[in-house]
Amino acid sequence: MSFQDLDDLNQTVHALDHALSVLSVDEAVNMPTGGGEARAEALATLAGIRHEHASDPKIRDLIEAARKEDLTEDQRTALEEFDRVYTNLVCLPVEFVRRKTETTTRTEQAWRAMRPANDWKDFEKELKKVVDLAREESQLRAAATGLSPYDALMDQFDPGNRAENVTPVFTHLKSFLKQFLPEALAAQAERLAKRPLRPVMGPFPKASQKALAEAVMPVVGFDFTHGRLDESHHPFCGGVPTDVRMTTRYTETEFLTSLLAVLHETGHALYEQGLERISAHWPHTQARGMGMHESQSLFVEMQIARSREFWEWARVYVDEHIGTHALEDLEVDDIMAIVNHIEPGYIRVDADEVTYPLHVILRYELESGLIGGNMQVSDIPELWDAKMKEYLGISTIDNPKDGPMQDVHWPAGLFGYFPSYTLGAMMAAQQWAAMEKANPGARQQIAKGDFSKINDWRRDNIWRQGSRFSTPEIMRRATGEELNADFFINHLKKRYL
Amino acid sequence: MSFQDLDDLNQTVHALDHALSVLSVDEAVNMPTGGGEARAEALATLAGIRHEHASDPKIRDLIEAARKEDLTEDQRTALEEFDRVYTNLVCLPVEFVRRKTETTTRTEQAWRAMRPANDWKDFEKELKKVVDLAREESQLRAAATGLSPYDALMDQFDPGNRAENVTPVFTHLKSFLKQFLPEALAAQAERLAKRPLRPVMGPFPKASQKALAEAVMPVVGFDFTHGRLDESHHPFCGGVPTDVRMTTRYTETEFLTSLLAVLHETGHALYEQGLERISAHWPHTQARGMGMHESQSLFVEMQIARSREFWEWARVYVDEHIGTHALEDLEVDDIMAIVNHIEPGYIRVDADEVTYPLHVILRYELESGLIGGNMQVSDIPELWDAKMKEYLGISTIDNPKDGPMQDVHWPAGLFGYFPSYTLGAMMAAQQWAAMEKANPGARQQIAKGDFSKINDWRRDNIWRQGSRFSTPEIMRRATGEELNADFFINHLKKRYL
Repeated sequence: MSFQDLDDLNQTVHALDHALSVLSVDEAVNMPTGGGEARAEALATLAGIRHEHASDPKIRDLIEAARKEDLTEDQRTALEEFDRVYTNLVCLPVEFVRRKTETTTRTEQAWRAMRPANDWKDFEKELKKVVDLAREESQLRAAATGLSPYDALMDQFDPGNRAENVTPVFTHLKSFLKQFLPEALAAQAERLAKRPLRPVMGPFPKASQKALAEAVMPVVGFDFTHGRLDESHHPFCGGVPTDVRMTTRYTETEFLTSLLAVLHETGHALYEQGLERISAHWPHTQARGMGMHESQSLFVEMQIARSREFWEWARVYVDEHIGTHALEDLEVDDIMAIVNHIEPGYIRVDADEVTYPLHVILRYELESGLIGGNMQVSDIPELWDAKMKEYLGISTIDNPKDGPMQDVHWPAGLFGYFPSYTLGAMMAAQQWAAMEKANPGARQQIAKGDFSKINDWRRDNIWRQGSRFSTPEIMRRATGEELNADFFINHLKKRYL
Repeated sequence: MSFQDLDDLNQTVHALDHALSVLSVDEAVNMPTGGGEARAEALATLAGIRHEHASDPKIRDLIEAARKEDLTEDQRTALEEFDRVYTNLVCLPVEFVRRKTETTTRTEQAWRAMRPANDWKDFEKELKKVVDLAREESQLRAAATGLSPYDALMDQFDPGNRAENVTPVFTHLKSFLKQFLPEALAAQAERLAKRPLRPVMGPFPKASQKALAEAVMPVVGFDFTHGRLDESHHPFCGGVPTDVRMTTRYTETEFLTSLLAVLHETGHALYEQGLERISAHWPHTQARGMGMHESQSLFVEMQIARSREFWEWARVYVDEHIGTHALEDLEVDDIMAIVNHIEPGYIRVDADEVTYPLHVILRYELESGLIGGNMQVSDIPELWDAKMKEYLGISTIDNPKDGPMQDVHWPAGLFGYFPSYTLGAMMAAQQWAAMEKANPGARQQIAKGDFSKINDWRRDNIWRQGSRFSTPEIMRRATGEELNADFFINHLKKRYL
């Protein structure tokens, strides 16, 4: 009976999550500006009702009582993941959550004004308050979960990821990349000296780009009976698993950036569409975490869509929907040179596949120091600059807006999130290798536009696993080993040397 | 403090209504088919949470306690309308609501199958169950409100409307229309003999029709910072007052039908956009009722958009967005002949302005008999046929699917709703007359595309009144007299003779 009560509760919370998710998509895609205030009030009230239900104190007793009931194995899995979610939800006192929301909202607003002004000094005072709160939160979460403070934060985004496992993998990857980056840049220069970049130049009308995206997406696996593609200012993948709302944006001068962004979001969408539909209102059937989600988007974007085989197949779609003029002077090698161009830079979100992990590892090193307490906010500019020089050979000391002020994460109170990006990239490479071992014809299949066997492997090994296991355990079951940076390293060597 | 508690409760219910409304719009406009099941579950769960909050038994005590508090006049108005809404919400036992939902859902499904099969006999058995429930409901509502059974039903859709007032007005209108219809048809035949109909023939691309609609709407008063126009299978006006979602549909052979449908929905939209924004979460600031809402859509559609002056102004918009070829051989008289063509027919929703009220009065007479108990479901076919012959000169006895089986209202359990359509038409004509008295240049303003003074009158007298008064009281305050069919009658005489 207690399990049934929890089932009803999950149904309620699930309906509210459905509403919150679709209303947020509508806000980004359809809502006229004047609707914003009433929408914000409605969302805040719904989020409050959701929290009230999901954090009801009687749930602890229901969980304990349900454990003693005669449950199926599936129900036991559901119950244990639900317990984890509940513990993580209620371990912060309401007073703390209110204080955090107030502070991070104010700091995020301050950041929006101070970043363009390159004003580190004032920003430092604001950020210090957020770091103090993040330390307090990490202690509260550590007490509730028995994890170390930084692990307790990371566990929010990818359950099971621990610094003791992540740090050596990042260290290995970092030392590889520091030596690899100059080699890869030299190899690129040599290729470009032989055959210069042939830029793709528009205008390419929006409608044609949308038609191209909507033609490619279903072949890659997107199910348009359970989702759609719209436009928004920032591309995202939202909605619910049975109705996935993807967005992109278009510039008419160029079509490759938008298409690759669509394919990145398609990777997220396939994960959501591929989740188990039975017990969809229980947390164990939801997508696992941020790192795992990023591995699914990067699997499509990096492993598939920036490969030679993909373009051997996809160029006829470009011919059909954009026009034969778009790529007519280009060989597949030329397309590879464009979509896999590398160049060290200041900004993480603009970084390529090779330099991106160094941006992330830098942030991981700093934020774990900040949370651990052996580093202070005032140390950030010099440490950031020293690491940028060491990893990428560029300095940000006079330009904090493109250095430690560039990301919204820290002012918004998100600590423990950054590692997910690079963990996702490594997991994607490792999953690709395991999939290719089971399906040695994968590259030839892509060249023919046949994604069915590749997606079958992903469905069985990732999507349908939902949140039944921790992130590392899903990886072990899917690939037969622990997270291993060498798969990603080999992928980079193959692509860039 | 009790008033504050009620304020919080209204905020919660309002947020849930916001979610339900926008999710329903999204379902009709954007949702892919595969999203339907999860959406239906989410909507049902949210509606349940809404009902739980809105019908909380402690509300009765809060209302009584708030009455004794020191309230502003506005707060007293809020409280009294809230009491009315609460009384109407909780007067049906949960057991009855469940029984009604089950029966009407089943009957509506049966109706969808039986109507195309023209199967009155089987339908009669199903409908009888719904009528029994409607009688039971009318008794329950009568007991809670002190109204007569049929009035208690009608009061759901237009608070304050009573059969003792509606019946004489309908009787007067009916006797006028029975004599007027042949005269109007003869006048029309005479006009067409002199100058035959000049049909407007496409193709008119969707994009041009949308551009025309979006050009005309803001001039008529629609605020695109608080709303948008989309496409759906059936046109509607939904969303929330700060974000009104209108829809239409287009056929490329013809553009007038869609434009007039857009203008009808624009009338609904202006009402919503024009409501008071302060205390928007309390019921006294909501739109009054179905009849009042219909008066706002028909004010725009019938009083404004089918007038000569409107077309003197609007045809340049057609020239610009659809092309000069669309209306090039047509005088304003020709456009009038098309948009105001009358022809008696079987189907209410296809009826013109002159015959529509007769369809409604027929249903009003039958359903008040059914609820009153002096008529049985088995009497419907013969009575329907007799009245159709008397009012419109056509018989439906052998064709129940286009007779008493044509509407979804009765199988869905909606009794007391039909009068709203024709009350709306009469109220619109009466409001027009009052507005024109205060603003004698109204027709010349329309001919110049200036709707500001007309809308100022409507904002002050209708929109901003919200639900502060009953429907008849709003009419009295706005027009200085009781509902009077003669305004509508004069309008018809002027337009059709």
